[in-house]
Amino acid sequence: MTELWKLSATEIARMIETCDTTCEKVTAACLERIEAREAEVDAWMYLDPETALADARAIDAHTSGRLVRGVPIGVKDIIDTKDMPTGHGSPIHTANRPDYDAPCVAMCRAEGGLILGKTVTSEFAHMTPGKTKNPHNPAHSPAGSSSGSGAAVADFMVPVAYGTQTGGSIVRPAAFNGCIGYKPSYGDYNPLGVHDNTRSVDTLGMLSRTMEDQALMRAVTMGLPYRPIVPVSVFDLKIGLCRTPHWAEADEATQSNVEGAASRLSEAGANVTDFELPQGFDDLEEAFDVVSAFEFARALAYEWHNHRDLLSQRVKDGRLELGWRLSYDTYRRGLATIKDYRDRFFESLDGIDLLITPSANGEAPEDLTTIGQAHFNRVWTAMHVPGISLPLFTGSAGLPIGLQLIGHLGGDEPFLDAADAVFRALG
Amino acid sequence: MTELWKLSATEIARMIETCDTTCEKVTAACLERIEAREAEVDAWMYLDPETALADARAIDAHTSGRLVRGVPIGVKDIIDTKDMPTGHGSPIHTANRPDYDAPCVAMCRAEGGLILGKTVTSEFAHMTPGKTKNPHNPAHSPAGSSSGSGAAVADFMVPVAYGTQTGGSIVRPAAFNGCIGYKPSYGDYNPLGVHDNTRSVDTLGMLSRTMEDQALMRAVTMGLPYRPIVPVSVFDLKIGLCRTPHWAEADEATQSNVEGAASRLSEAGANVTDFELPQGFDDLEEAFDVVSAFEFARALAYEWHNHRDLLSQRVKDGRLELGWRLSYDTYRRGLATIKDYRDRFFESLDGIDLLITPSANGEAPEDLTTIGQAHFNRVWTAMHVPGISLPLFTGSAGLPIGLQLIGHLGGDEPFLDAADAVFRALG
Repeated sequence: MTELWKLSATEIARMIETCDTTCEKVTAACLERIEAREAEVDAWMYLDPETALADARAIDAHTSGRLVRGVPIGVKDIIDTKDMPTGHGSPIHTANRPDYDAPCVAMCRAEGGLILGKTVTSEFAHMTPGKTKNPHNPAHSPAGSSSGSGAAVADFMVPVAYGTQTGGSIVRPAAFNGCIGYKPSYGDYNPLGVHDNTRSVDTLGMLSRTMEDQALMRAVTMGLPYRPIVPVSVFDLKIGLCRTPHWAEADEATQSNVEGAASRLSEAGANVTDFELPQGFDDLEEAFDVVSAFEFARALAYEWHNHRDLLSQRVKDGRLELGWRLSYDTYRRGLATIKDYRDRFFESLDGIDLLITPSANGEAPEDLTTIGQAHFNRVWTAMHVPGISLPLFTGSAGLPIGLQLIGHLGGDEPFLDAADAVFRALG
Repeated sequence: MTELWKLSATEIARMIETCDTTCEKVTAACLERIEAREAEVDAWMYLDPETALADARAIDAHTSGRLVRGVPIGVKDIIDTKDMPTGHGSPIHTANRPDYDAPCVAMCRAEGGLILGKTVTSEFAHMTPGKTKNPHNPAHSPAGSSSGSGAAVADFMVPVAYGTQTGGSIVRPAAFNGCIGYKPSYGDYNPLGVHDNTRSVDTLGMLSRTMEDQALMRAVTMGLPYRPIVPVSVFDLKIGLCRTPHWAEADEATQSNVEGAASRLSEAGANVTDFELPQGFDDLEEAFDVVSAFEFARALAYEWHNHRDLLSQRVKDGRLELGWRLSYDTYRRGLATIKDYRDRFFESLDGIDLLITPSANGEAPEDLTTIGQAHFNRVWTAMHVPGISLPLFTGSAGLPIGLQLIGHLGGDEPFLDAADAVFRALG
C-alpha cells in the first residue's frame, strides 16, 4: 500500500469516505514524514502533534461526507487560526492568538479538513526569509514568502497548504520546491484574517501536488459546490508565449524549457503564438513598487510605531522607509498606472486562453538569505489575473523549474481545466 | 471658557500644544459629557473611564508635538484595538481581545491621540442595529452601521470617531445624527484590522463636527504630512445636482433642501447643472446586492459554521443565505457590472468638481429596529469615490438632514477643500 503521506487531498478524502483509511492514520503518517524531514527542511512554524492527532480522532468520530473530511491542511503563518498562534514571521507577534479562524480556515474545518499546523512565512510576507530550507537541497532557498507551504507540500509533509502572493509568493515557492502553486483571481479566496502586505494586489492561494486538489480546495475555500476539473485538450487552446521584458534574466535552462514547452504544446495541436505585453511595462513596475511600499508601510503601522527594533533591516530600510516617504499623489498615480495597464492587458489578452511564461529566473539559488526575485511574477499579481506554476522541469543543479501559466480575471474555472491539460501534455 | 467637550480635535490639539489645557482635562470633560448623556444615547460599546484618564495622564507626561496630541478619538467596534475588546456588534465576539492595533488606531496613537473607547456598531456592520439611540430624540434611529460613532460625535461626547461604510454606514449616521461623515476614496484609509463586510467596496472613514478635523484626521490616518483645508470659493466650482433614480423616495424636506442648496450655490456663483447617472443603474444596484451577499457570506464563514445560532435572523436569512446560494459566475458578473459602471461614471464626471445629492431619504425614522435605507449611498460606495455628508438642514420632525457631496476617486484633497467651501456657503 502507498504510504499515506504520499496521497493527494483528493485521494485522502476518497479513502476516508470509503473507510479505507482514517484521518488519524493519515495525520499520523504526515507527522511521521515531518518527524523524518523537518530537521532538514524547517517548514513548520507551529505544529502540535498531540493536538493534531486528537483533532483527527474527533474528525473520524464526529463528521462525515464533507469535501475534505480528514485531509491535513497547512496554513501559512500570516493567516489567523483560533487554536494556534499566528506569528506573521515576526518576533513581535509570537504571543498572538486570534479569537477566531480566518474564513479560509473556517471553511476548511467546516468541510472536515484538519488544520495540521502553521507553515513558515517570510517576515510579514515580505523579503526577509524564515527558517525553511529547500527540501531538494537544504543549502538552497525555498523561495518565499510562502516558503513553508511550498516546502511542506513538495516534501510530502502535507498534501495542500495555503499561501499568499503579493509579488510571486505562491508561484515561486511552488517553482523552487517543485509543486503546484495557484494564485486565484484577486478576491476569489476571501483574505479576511490574512495579514496585508499590499492590499490592492495581495491574493490568497494554495500549494498542492495535483491539479485535482486545486479544484477541490477551490470549492472548499470559496464555499462553492465542488467543480471537478473538466478534461480539455491542448488542441483546443490558444496559448501565448510571453517572455516578458525580463527574459534575458532567465537562465538558459529556464529559457529553453519554456520555449521547449511552447514547441511541444504546438506540436500537440495548441495554437501557440508569441505574446507581447502592452507598452509601459517599466512604468507598471515602478508603479507596483510605489503602491506596494505605500500600502505595506500602513499595514505595518502598529509594528513600525511600537516595535521598530524588532523589524528586520530589510523590511525597515528597504520597504517601510520608502513607503512613509511617498506622497499621496505619487501613490494614487501608481494605482492609476496599474489600472490603466490592467485594462490594456485585458484587451491584449482577448482571444487567448492562457499565457505561458517563466515562474522564476531559474532554479532555487544556493543562498538562504534571499527568497528570490519576483521579476516574472509581479506583473501578473498586479493584473489580478490567476496564475499557476507547474513543476515540469529540472535545472542544471538538479533542482525544480516551474512553468507559469496565466489566465483571465474571473476565468479561473476554465483556467484550471486548461492548466490541467497543459500539465498532462507536458508532464 | 468653552466647555472642553465642545471643542474640535483641531482646537484640542492646539490648546494642548499651547498648554492651555491638558489631555486629562479634555478627557475628563468628554467623560462627564458621556456620563450625562450615555443613558439616553447608548453610543459606547466599551469605555473604561479610569484607563482613559490614566492614558490621558501618560500622554500629558510623555509626549509632545504630535498632530493629535491629547485628542480623544472614538473607534467603531469592528476595528481591532490591543487594549480593548473588539466585539463586532455580535455576542460571538464579546471575549475578542486582538493582539495588536489596527493601523488606523496605531497611527492615531503614534500622533498622540487618545483612544477613548469603542463605539457601537450594527452587527458585523450590517443591518441589525445596536443599542444606540439618536441623540436628538431617543425614539429615533441613529442610523448605522456606524451608529455609535455618529451619535457620539454629534452629541459632543468625542470630537472624532472612526466609522466604516459598505452602503451608507458613515454618510447616513452623519446625516441622521447631525455631524460630518467622510468616506474617503476606496483604499485611502488602510482597513487592515477592520472586519470586512463587503471587501471590494468597504471603506474606513471618519465622523467629525468640523471639516478642519477631517483634514487633520486624514493626515493622521494616512500617515501623511498634515495638509490643511485650502480655502476655495464655490464660485470656482462646477457642481452637478444628482437626484438619482431614487429621488421620488426622498421626502419633501430632503428634496426641497437639496434643490435649495443647488440654487443657493448657483446664486453664490457656482456652475451648477443637473447630473444624470449613466445608464444601467438598476443593473448596478442588483450587482451590488449580489457582490455584497457573496463577500459578506465568506467574511462570516467562521461565525456561520460555528455560531450560527448567535447570528441575528436579519443577517442569517437576509444576507448570508443568499450569499451562500450565489454562483461564482453570478458573483463575477456582478463585479464586472460594477467595474463597467464605474468606468462610465468616471467618464461622465469629467469636468465636474463634485456632485450634490441626498444623504438619505429623510430624517431619522422613529424606529429603532432599522438603520435606514442605503438607497442614496450604495452607488457611491460602489464607485469607490469619496463622499461627505454635511449637517446643513432640519426636517419637519426637528431632526437633522444632511447634504451628500461626491468627489473624484483619488481626488480627496481638492474634494475636502470643495466640501469646506460648500459647508461655509450654505452653513
